[in-house]
Amino acid sequence: MSRTNHFTTIEQMEADTAKLRETACNVCAETWEDRAKAQTPHCKFGEGGICCRNCSMGPCRITPKSPRGICGANADAIAARNYLRSIAAGTSSHSDHAREILHVLKSASRDGNYQVRDELKLINLAKEWDVETEGRDIYDIAHDVADVGLLEFGKPEGTQRFLTRATEERQKVWKEQDIEPRAIDREVVTAMHMTHMGNSADAEALVRQGLRMSLANGWGGSMLGTEITDILFGTPTVWTTEGNLGVLESDMVNIIVHGHDPAFSEMLVTACEVRELVDYAKTKGAKGINVVGLCCTANEVAMRHGVRMAGNFLQQENVILTGAVEMMCVDIQCIFPALAQLSQCFHTKFITSSPIARIPGSTYVEFKPETAFDQAKQLVREAIDNFQNRDESKVYIPPTKQTATVGYPTEQIIKHLDNVTNSHVEIIGTYKPVIDTIRSGVLRGAVAIVGCNNPRVRPDYSHFEIMKELIANDILIVATGCAAQLATKAGLLNKDAKYLCGAGLRRVCELVDIPPILHMGACVDISRMMLLATGIAKDWGVDITQIPVVGCAPEWMSEKAVSIANYVVSTGLDVYLGIEPQVNGSDQMMEIITQGTRKITGAGYIINTDPHQLVKSIIEGIEEKRAALGI
Amino acid sequence: MSRTNHFTTIEQMEADTAKLRETACNVCAETWEDRAKAQTPHCKFGEGGICCRNCSMGPCRITPKSPRGICGANADAIAARNYLRSIAAGTSSHSDHAREILHVLKSASRDGNYQVRDELKLINLAKEWDVETEGRDIYDIAHDVADVGLLEFGKPEGTQRFLTRATEERQKVWKEQDIEPRAIDREVVTAMHMTHMGNSADAEALVRQGLRMSLANGWGGSMLGTEITDILFGTPTVWTTEGNLGVLESDMVNIIVHGHDPAFSEMLVTACEVRELVDYAKTKGAKGINVVGLCCTANEVAMRHGVRMAGNFLQQENVILTGAVEMMCVDIQCIFPALAQLSQCFHTKFITSSPIARIPGSTYVEFKPETAFDQAKQLVREAIDNFQNRDESKVYIPPTKQTATVGYPTEQIIKHLDNVTNSHVEIIGTYKPVIDTIRSGVLRGAVAIVGCNNPRVRPDYSHFEIMKELIANDILIVATGCAAQLATKAGLLNKDAKYLCGAGLRRVCELVDIPPILHMGACVDISRMMLLATGIAKDWGVDITQIPVVGCAPEWMSEKAVSIANYVVSTGLDVYLGIEPQVNGSDQMMEIITQGTRKITGAGYIINTDPHQLVKSIIEGIEEKRAALGI
Repeated sequence: MSRTNHFTTIEQMEADTAKLRETACNVCAETWEDRAKAQTPHCKFGEGGICCRNCSMGPCRITPKSPRGICGANADAIAARNYLRSIAAGTSSHSDHAREILHVLKSASRDGNYQVRDELKLINLAKEWDVETEGRDIYDIAHDVADVGLLEFGKPEGTQRFLTRATEERQKVWKEQDIEPRAIDREVVTAMHMTHMGNSADAEALVRQGLRMSLANGWGGSMLGTEITDILFGTPTVWTTEGNLGVLESDMVNIIVHGHDPAFSEMLVTACEVRELVDYAKTKGAKGINVVGLCCTANEVAMRHGVRMAGNFLQQENVILTGAVEMMCVDIQCIFPALAQLSQCFHTKFITSSPIARIPGSTYVEFKPETAFDQAKQLVREAIDNFQNRDESKVYIPPTKQTATVGYPTEQIIKHLDNVTNSHVEIIGTYKPVIDTIRSGVLRGAVAIVGCNNPRVRPDYSHFEIMKELIANDILIVATGCAAQLATKAGLLNKDAKYLCGAGLRRVCELVDIPPILHMGACVDISRMMLLATGIAKDWGVDITQIPVVGCAPEWMSEKAVSIANYVVSTGLDVYLGIEPQVNGSDQMMEIITQGTRKITGAGYIINTDPHQLVKSIIEGIEEKRAALGI
Repeated sequence: MSRTNHFTTIEQMEADTAKLRETACNVCAETWEDRAKAQTPHCKFGEGGICCRNCSMGPCRITPKSPRGICGANADAIAARNYLRSIAAGTSSHSDHAREILHVLKSASRDGNYQVRDELKLINLAKEWDVETEGRDIYDIAHDVADVGLLEFGKPEGTQRFLTRATEERQKVWKEQDIEPRAIDREVVTAMHMTHMGNSADAEALVRQGLRMSLANGWGGSMLGTEITDILFGTPTVWTTEGNLGVLESDMVNIIVHGHDPAFSEMLVTACEVRELVDYAKTKGAKGINVVGLCCTANEVAMRHGVRMAGNFLQQENVILTGAVEMMCVDIQCIFPALAQLSQCFHTKFITSSPIARIPGSTYVEFKPETAFDQAKQLVREAIDNFQNRDESKVYIPPTKQTATVGYPTEQIIKHLDNVTNSHVEIIGTYKPVIDTIRSGVLRGAVAIVGCNNPRVRPDYSHFEIMKELIANDILIVATGCAAQLATKAGLLNKDAKYLCGAGLRRVCELVDIPPILHMGACVDISRMMLLATGIAKDWGVDITQIPVVGCAPEWMSEKAVSIANYVVSTGLDVYLGIEPQVNGSDQMMEIITQGTRKITGAGYIINTDPHQLVKSIIEGIEEKRAALGI
């Protein structure tokens, strides 16, 4: 890409999808577009959050003629309960993911399937948690750290350990507002209890529990997940890689890793590099093995190995529709059960691996740390054996792809900032350089763009429009999840995307040698963003609510996203949403999530389903924060 | 009551309700009957379990034209996920209740608000859990036991401690089927994770997690709740008391305790006995203080203090409609939010006490163990002050009430059986006498009747019809919860109810000196029933699935009930349901819950919404078990 004319437009992406849907038609397969059409219009009660199914007296639905459920719960109570249960499911998902990673750490050994790759991070975490490190074997330390981490889920007393990483003012807010999260699992159970028939009907009390529980995710489960994943598989570094369907290879064995938990995909990626298996692939007529990622698993392996990325959430069926995938291996979360049926229209083997995500029609290979590598090699061998079954008449791989520079955890951001710091006169290891550019107005601020795709809006369009507009206005973007994947597909993670930026951001990109959108990882890694914002606020010496940094989820879809949005708000950062939370049947709930939380955490939602209006309000919001700081 | 002509019929109960609904009309208040009418017909998608709201792409609804949600989840996946989330909420509720009781035990002290009342039970539990008891202060033991108990919710490893109380065969089944529950909270989080978008779509895998999680309730949280409640407030003993609205007194200060967690109600009951407060009531023109229970809190205080019971779930509004209630104090679960609005039509003060159950329009007094007694006395004082505000023109107390003998935990059952054992030739402390009567055919078997009321059926009618028919057929009943409350109101807990029994059961009632329906407590106490069935199976020397004992929930309503039904099935006992679980939009789910679980646990559901047909199949089921045993 040079200048502005080589990024991939949404129209080009849609043209690729259209061609693949022809294939779907030819093999008599349906895709999400068909199902979304069949499911429209959606139930208005569900969309508004005012359908209650929490006991078998109902379901009850709120209408002007029936303003209360049988128990007397009104729209506010029902919408708030449903909202809280969403946060409970989202918190459970991210956190349970982290627990699995902790179990992998517990099983790690020098000669086992999993090793410690970032010893320094382990030592630092051990010190933070008062685990003895002096003169001890790194694996003994690892196992003790795993034990301490696992207790964060169920300890009978105390609050989450990572809360102390936050700014002093944030810790004070959480304490004063009584939203410091206790054990992660307990917060979920409390929420499920509160929402049981005959318990809380007070929307504000329910939302408060949502804030507390979400913190058990953002500053608990997710942060644990990220830390331990870095310890096990290495803290991400900068890689140049590629993204979009064009990363599939017509003459290689294509293996897709899809999901969120990298324990499985890490092993598969390693297995795909085994010389013996590569040679075996060649004996089967393939030029080699091409392992590529999908969804957040793609983000995980791209940031640690430069593995190429086939696409994001709503692209998962497209990948199979290329007809060129020998095996799709999934772990957990955001996996269409539709993949089972769809893969049967091709030679594609569809492998599920986790007891958390059992899908009928898949081949289930329960992945276990103690046999992980052997299992991975066996799967790769089966994928290779499957290469010969590919039906060339069904193969079409859209050639579209983009180069992307990925892998900017906070450690890499600091490292890049250090490179532009004059270490003779300034201290290094801080966010001062970026703060200075924001203060001076060269950068106006930063936005964390996160979240999924959602058929409710034109897929990827909102991400794209908002990203272009923000960087053109000298606003730096950090991105994770499917938002980061769109940036990849579009070409916005290419350093040449600086040509789309305003003069200030472009200068920063050139000076610091970064693209204008920094890929920070998977959705579980939004905890990295919380630490980034915390670091900036600390180095700035202001409250986190004051810095011109906000969050944005233009196309969010999952309950994880609801939990994330809540912990971002709890952390003091406004969240701009392009999809409305399903509570609009309650005026009180709409007021609480947009205004009421501001009294509790200093932040709230701004909701607009029009991406252009949404980005306008983001820019206004950032300028307001700047004005309040007198900059 | 003598012979059969003095029990209270459903028609009489309905006549009382009709009169109170006239009062409602006069004060312009609505009741559940109005709301149920306005909410009918219910949404068929919700009733069938085939509406999915687990991500914001939806809601999706399954129809012949749209057989899959946008992600591809079909009716089976959606119904199973919804079902699992119900079990999660039910498990959370019972278990979280137990956690609160454990916190009370942790705070207990010789000179504090809460003491240990059953030291022997504490010592026995301490020994079961390897907590040192020799030469230690009982409160030191109590606090250690509380710590061990609290870890059952969050311990990173191991399974529930109480599993070892089950029969050997049951433990073997749970292990082989991989449904041994780990930490209670973890099972909930696992379930919430599995049901998140893009995870499990396999109905059988989801139901299996439901079975495992439910065991974390029945053999975890609920059993902990019952044990610790007994330790703190005394193991229940036999009391003769009264039940139904007639227990309200026109010339006394009426205070209602309502909910489930006895920590609050125990203090209120004690405060109502304080001489100074009784005298104070007299200075205000009342003859005294009349504290009565409602719902499961009623069961708790009736079994431990003989406190009278005003009624069950669907009677909660009736109590306020008498116009004679000075204060209603609620703790958690099954509390209509409607009570707030309704109490405002009268002088009634509506007091909420738990952060779990915040209700707008109530007065919130957060109850804390360290200030419990002072808080209780203050509330009683306020209730007394409120006596003068009673508006006599609005008062009508239906005179209907019945005498009831309550309080048959397993310890009391054994004690009664010991009384009919010839200790010279037989060992005492066993269920042998009851087993002998079942073997000989004098008793045909036993049924545990549990659960709520539900406007889907004529309230209490199914309970009543099934109970009458069973005892007439020489089948002993053990009852808890709102089912036990109906038995109370009807007069079936009176020892004279023997005249309704077949000759065999009548003889047993006379010999053992019991009513034909044994009141075992609140819904959390269904764990007692599991231990009863276990004890019978052990003393019989057969599998628990073989004994002619089953569970029945004719009018269940809550998600707790779904969790309970699952742990009863997991324990190996068939469950007869008078309300259909909301999964009938999935043929696979209907098959799994009625047949599929039999392959896993040896038991399943039998569903029939007609109480006469249901009781017929119960009797057939019991006779089949007998035939299989060759008796």
